[in-house]
Amino acid sequence: MEKSVTIHSVLDWGEVELLQACGDDLTPVGAARTSFAGRVGDEERDVKLLRFLAKNGHHGPFEFIDATWRIKAPIFVARQWMRHRTGSYNEFSYRYADPKKLSDGEAAQYYAPRQWKAQGTGNKQTSGSELPGTGMDIEVAYHDSMREARQSYNDAIEHGVSREQARLFLPTSFYTQFWYKTNMRNLLHFLTLRLDEHAQEETRMFAEAIAKDVESNWPLVWGLFKEGHFA
Amino acid sequence: MEKSVTIHSVLDWGEVELLQACGDDLTPVGAARTSFAGRVGDEERDVKLLRFLAKNGHHGPFEFIDATWRIKAPIFVARQWMRHRTGSYNEFSYRYADPKKLSDGEAAQYYAPRQWKAQGTGNKQTSGSELPGTGMDIEVAYHDSMREARQSYNDAIEHGVSREQARLFLPTSFYTQFWYKTNMRNLLHFLTLRLDEHAQEETRMFAEAIAKDVESNWPLVWGLFKEGHFA
Amino acid sequence: MEKSVTIHSVLDWGEVELLQACGDDLTPVGAARTSFAGRVGDEERDVKLLRFLAKNGHHGPFEFIDATWRIKAPIFVARQWMRHRTGSYNEFSYRYADPKKLSDGEAAQYYAPRQWKAQGTGNKQTSGSELPGTGMDIEVAYHDSMREARQSYNDAIEHGVSREQARLFLPTSFYTQFWYKTNMRNLLHFLTLRLDEHAQEETRMFAEAIAKDVESNWPLVWGLFKEGHFA
Amino acid sequence: MEKSVTIHSVLDWGEVELLQACGDDLTPVGAARTSFAGRVGDEERDVKLLRFLAKNGHHGPFEFIDATWRIKAPIFVARQWMRHRTGSYNEFSYRYADPKKLSDGEAAQYYAPRQWKAQGTGNKQTSGSELPGTGMDIEVAYHDSMREARQSYNDAIEHGVSREQARLFLPTSFYTQFWYKTNMRNLLHFLTLRLDEHAQEETRMFAEAIAKDVESNWPLVWGLFKEGHFA
Repeated sequence: MEKSVTIHSVLDWGEVELLQACGDDLTPVGAARTSFAGRVGDEERDVKLLRFLAKNGHHGPFEFIDATWRIKAPIFVARQWMRHRTGSYNEFSYRYADPKKLSDGEAAQYYAPRQWKAQGTGNKQTSGSELPGTGMDIEVAYHDSMREARQSYNDAIEHGVSREQARLFLPTSFYTQFWYKTNMRNLLHFLTLRLDEHAQEETRMFAEAIAKDVESNWPLVWGLFKEGHFA
Repeated sequence: MEKSVTIHSVLDWGEVELLQACGDDLTPVGAARTSFAGRVGDEERDVKLLRFLAKNGHHGPFEFIDATWRIKAPIFVARQWMRHRTGSYNEFSYRYADPKKLSDGEAAQYYAPRQWKAQGTGNKQTSGSELPGTGMDIEVAYHDSMREARQSYNDAIEHGVSREQARLFLPTSFYTQFWYKTNMRNLLHFLTLRLDEHAQEETRMFAEAIAKDVESNWPLVWGLFKEGHFA
Repeated sequence: MEKSVTIHSVLDWGEVELLQACGDDLTPVGAARTSFAGRVGDEERDVKLLRFLAKNGHHGPFEFIDATWRIKAPIFVARQWMRHRTGSYNEFSYRYADPKKLSDGEAAQYYAPRQWKAQGTGNKQTSGSELPGTGMDIEVAYHDSMREARQSYNDAIEHGVSREQARLFLPTSFYTQFWYKTNMRNLLHFLTLRLDEHAQEETRMFAEAIAKDVESNWPLVWGLFKEGHFA
Repeated sequence: MEKSVTIHSVLDWGEVELLQACGDDLTPVGAARTSFAGRVGDEERDVKLLRFLAKNGHHGPFEFIDATWRIKAPIFVARQWMRHRTGSYNEFSYRYADPKKLSDGEAAQYYAPRQWKAQGTGNKQTSGSELPGTGMDIEVAYHDSMREARQSYNDAIEHGVSREQARLFLPTSFYTQFWYKTNMRNLLHFLTLRLDEHAQEETRMFAEAIAKDVESNWPLVWGLFKEGHFA
């Protein structure tokens, strides 16, 4: 299939890039017609069948669309992502490689929130309000701490400490990179959970980049998802 | 990727057709280099890395190759096939559709062994010798029984019995059809088990057709498989 | 845990027996409190948390309940069942063993519908009405055909034909037996699909026997399932 | 089943505790006999069949043993562990809970290597030699960096920063806790990979604690594993 090749920028240093894809909007119809032993007919009937499958919970045929993304994200986002067990993952390893290669630059990169939030009182998971003015300048303290961690990491590497151990200095805010491959059925389940307003904000922003690629490459499937047939 | 489109004939009425594929021989190298944070280099180094991955049990990157086949096989073969839980399947349903559509002809098709075998005495799973001459003409008895089952099925359908119930007349020798999608890592595991000389002969013949497609489309991966690195 | 040991009879010769189980109603609470790093508290708070998890889609902790059943069912039911890929299965094999052992008796057993149904005109999947009187006596024809298949099977075995090939005579109405192990999350998904009124009737009757065991052994989880929190 | 309840200490603050288990050494034999349609016989024959299954790659029946552990481990170990996608996991969340609860004490705990290693020159994954004397006192630098990260984390929490964001200060050396549930077949695959001498040392030490529980509770299975039948 043809696909639009775009690298989406996410957060400060994050990236989402669709690398390869198998199957188009009507592939699930082809798979389903195996069941019906018919031939793929005119497009109007195909679209109607696609809608029927989505609406009636026959989501198996959507497994015949497959896609692979390259993701560059902070470690804490990668951790949450990989809890989804139905995909294939291959991740950059700080045990083997110099993270400067990750960042195409001089230094390993870390994520810094644009806005610091106060711990919520009601729902502990999210916190809507901005951090009230305190004696602590969280912005300064954060960058100091991150730079220091990175400096210690670099010092350790320079002094010959194994990469495997040197990475222990690095917080989960530092960036990593991985390939993520999954089928459309599992991807839509991922999007249902990660586009939700209660999802962790940073992961949600990656999910939104994935969603754009779904909308561009599988507009019919995306439309059915937006109608709520995969929730 | 370009792929050779061929429909392999298997057994008497069986078919194997590669429908779509994602990723070529060097895709696993690309996935692995995420780990190494390097760029895909010259082909010689790529091939060397591919071999390294296969030999050292780093089989995760092979999950980034994906392929889908259409299979027409007897029910008893399909049953064994679908015990492999790591693929996606969508099967023709005798509950919905007329099996005549399956066979492009007048009648539902059944599989008939070319050679009848005696129950082995040692290893109960396989039996190497031909059936000794007996009073029973197994060949005649078999075709009589199959034709009778099919006739009863057709009679039931004609008299308005639901397809769901009418199919109860049909033995597991009758043909069905399904789509099978899996990644290369799981496919090579499937081939290891199903190409084995102890595997059920009929399923092995389907595995051999799949193997031909792997050899045509992913010759390097196939070579590494033949060397035994995925057993 | 203590569990009620019962063998449920299903259809004419079918059986459902809970063999082993791990985890009780409050096990998901214990798993969830890992997240909260708290200790398991009083029962009232535990039940409240259980309900919270179910209602808010936090179904992961329900994976920590596990159960295994022995199922004796017709082949066509087993086929549908094993399409659920998230459980463990081990099935009786007609390739190795004499099906008389399956039936504790003289002959391999087959399923016979109590009521024959006409092919529906609207929804092709189910058919609500009884078969109208026709020239064909479907009841007689069915038992004739099944007995003949069994006779041919027995003849082939007696004449030394391998079990692997002899079983080709047998329709999917014949009984098989398997072990089914799954966790509670996947089981509730199975029940959602298979207790549905549109599910194939015979499979639904097995799902109902499973449901009884869930109700007896995990009454709180069952209550939350009945409220619709796992659909 | 009865099981020995022990909490294994691993590394400096790590723990491994077997919480629940289903099935004993001969459960796989029971599952396999479904295939053979026989009854569980005398123990000698059972043990012989167990060995036969293991040796001949019939590992499916081993899925009918199931076990759950509570693990307290550094984040970088947890990350590697959860790449094994075939188990169930529920993890403590720094987004919800105070890590002091994790450590039953005053402060969040971090892992410190007992021995610092030099980056290897040949095989980049492991490094066998001790760090040569350098100007940098890695031991001091490490504890300084960890204490500082923890102090910044605590300051942020005290000043009302949301837990979700405050945890960005913490390196992957800090401890987390999770439940891990899997079946014996997948567990033995996990052990094959993680007991290997090339596996990351810290993860290997957790795998060794798991292995002790397998040896205590399933000695026959453990013996067959040691003979190499699950590699």
